[in-house]
Amino acid sequence: MSWESNIRRVIPYTPGEQPKISDVIKLNTNENPYPPTPRVMEILNSYECGRMRLYPDTNSEVLVNALADFYKVKSSQVFVGVGSDDVISMAFLTFFNSDKPILFPDITYSFYDVWADVYRIPYKTIPLTEDFRIDPADYTIPNGGIIFPNPNAPTGVLESLDTIEEILKANPDSVVMVDEAYIDFGGKSVLPLLDKYENLLVIQTFSKSRSMAGMRIGFAIGSEKMIKYLNDVKFSINSYTMNPLTQLSGAEAVKDAEYFYETTKKIMETREDAKKRLTALGFTFPDAMSNFIFATHPDYDAAEIFTALKERKIFVRHWNKPRISQYLRITIGTPEEMDSFFAALEEILGTLTKRGNA
Amino acid sequence: MSWESNIRRVIPYTPGEQPKISDVIKLNTNENPYPPTPRVMEILNSYECGRMRLYPDTNSEVLVNALADFYKVKSSQVFVGVGSDDVISMAFLTFFNSDKPILFPDITYSFYDVWADVYRIPYKTIPLTEDFRIDPADYTIPNGGIIFPNPNAPTGVLESLDTIEEILKANPDSVVMVDEAYIDFGGKSVLPLLDKYENLLVIQTFSKSRSMAGMRIGFAIGSEKMIKYLNDVKFSINSYTMNPLTQLSGAEAVKDAEYFYETTKKIMETREDAKKRLTALGFTFPDAMSNFIFATHPDYDAAEIFTALKERKIFVRHWNKPRISQYLRITIGTPEEMDSFFAALEEILGTLTKRGNA
Repeated sequence: MSWESNIRRVIPYTPGEQPKISDVIKLNTNENPYPPTPRVMEILNSYECGRMRLYPDTNSEVLVNALADFYKVKSSQVFVGVGSDDVISMAFLTFFNSDKPILFPDITYSFYDVWADVYRIPYKTIPLTEDFRIDPADYTIPNGGIIFPNPNAPTGVLESLDTIEEILKANPDSVVMVDEAYIDFGGKSVLPLLDKYENLLVIQTFSKSRSMAGMRIGFAIGSEKMIKYLNDVKFSINSYTMNPLTQLSGAEAVKDAEYFYETTKKIMETREDAKKRLTALGFTFPDAMSNFIFATHPDYDAAEIFTALKERKIFVRHWNKPRISQYLRITIGTPEEMDSFFAALEEILGTLTKRGNA
Repeated sequence: MSWESNIRRVIPYTPGEQPKISDVIKLNTNENPYPPTPRVMEILNSYECGRMRLYPDTNSEVLVNALADFYKVKSSQVFVGVGSDDVISMAFLTFFNSDKPILFPDITYSFYDVWADVYRIPYKTIPLTEDFRIDPADYTIPNGGIIFPNPNAPTGVLESLDTIEEILKANPDSVVMVDEAYIDFGGKSVLPLLDKYENLLVIQTFSKSRSMAGMRIGFAIGSEKMIKYLNDVKFSINSYTMNPLTQLSGAEAVKDAEYFYETTKKIMETREDAKKRLTALGFTFPDAMSNFIFATHPDYDAAEIFTALKERKIFVRHWNKPRISQYLRITIGTPEEMDSFFAALEEILGTLTKRGNA
């Protein structure tokens, strides 16, 4: 017996590398290559610092109201947190308290099993189909809840609203969370289904489409009942999580819809161009509806490409995990960054030994 | 059976009121009456917003290193979070996993039992003595951990290092957390005992003595082992909690030691003056070593004074709870704010009916 006997022992999540060297091309953590709306700078530069001595608004009303306006829901249907990780973590703690396992895909955001472990939630992973798709029929077994991203990460595969509705129809007694971190890059949000399903929680983030990964803002939209439960747990953990700069600049980012549509459109255009260039180099990939592409090459080893890119100060993401160890997840950068990436990639493919020819 | 069957149902913490009307004198949430160091404004005004598109440093190194320098400990002994509430919540989840109850005083920070409830941690409250002191002999029963603030809140009573060491000596197999939110107003920190007790965790905040309640920064200092366990849990919940503005301005606030000593000294002077004025009006209070005074009047009802002050737009804190319902917690404001407070208080006492004379 010692003070260490009662420690909660966990294996933490490993975030993508944040290189400290300068002059890198960073296509490894799905950040937006464009800066946030200039309105964010106005907020920071005009903020009266003396007010920082006071506690912030616990309810983040300015941000919640801006989101409610934008997504045409009630403010009481919006929950905000310190990044979507904070929101999802809080949702796991609030809604996933069954003895039955929660379900999520085998290939997916690698934080889900970490949250399940830290909160001692039983879980079962459901294999994606051969072509990385979700089969709703797999989600009809007894469960304590369901979560999946749409588009999925790291595959970039988008499922239709019909597919998601099939899962909702089969699970009226489970909370179903759809993690839409990447929905703004051409996907169709499941938000309209909120009118029909009180047990649906939609989670989004400012880290990708709104260029504010640094500011830490995520949110969930759901039925008033669900948001109330979520807030009760949030207010049992930390009453004041979002500082006023975050609240104000987040609200401005939402209000600047024009900038949002313009930058996400540019990223989608660059992505479509990148798809062509990858195909021309012999890569294959599930069709990506996100700000990244999950690509594999029949002839060259993914880990070797990853390392060779890194040597050239180009960072992409690679997981040494079953089913996906031959894939690279490439975040869409600016057109200029993608030019450098493809120049390096071409050069690398010219030097690597083909698989099976070793 | 419905999706609501597995909800974690809780009774959330009630934070002090944040009045939305202007022109109030706010002595209700122990905020600092002075603005943060001007260096914080420099950080905000010079921040290059384009960098906000990138994820922040997960390890908050700039802030952790500044704290390690200031408190003369290793960086690996420092844990930072989104306010001390975030830090304590994470510490409860990490360290309090025994079947035995954790112990804390009956009159104390009213968030402890909320965290215990949300995380399903058994707890037992230990009554303070008649004069609101901690008796170490009460903390020798079997337990799953111990937490108390020093100075205690809402009483303002400071315990000696000897008292705390007695508790540590009796509990080598428990994690003992000392919540030093108010230590910088004349108290002596328990930090020097870290060399002797690997199971001691010291928690502090930027919300009071560093005038940054809005920015949300708290931290814990402990043995390298403890901080490692805490970080493992933190990285199992949210890898990126602190935005770069928070990290940078927090570091600057720590580096500006002169400003810190100057403002805390001013607050202590105002507090000592307030003690005299309260005594002159017939109030009694345990000697306060915090930025607030917990006062009661033998003749006048605390709730009535509270309401009368509020009508004059002066906010203090009152709890309708056993043992303390006749007390008001009065935060120390600027000398000018205290003048207005005492003018109002004198006027109010002249109009209220004496207790027992109703």
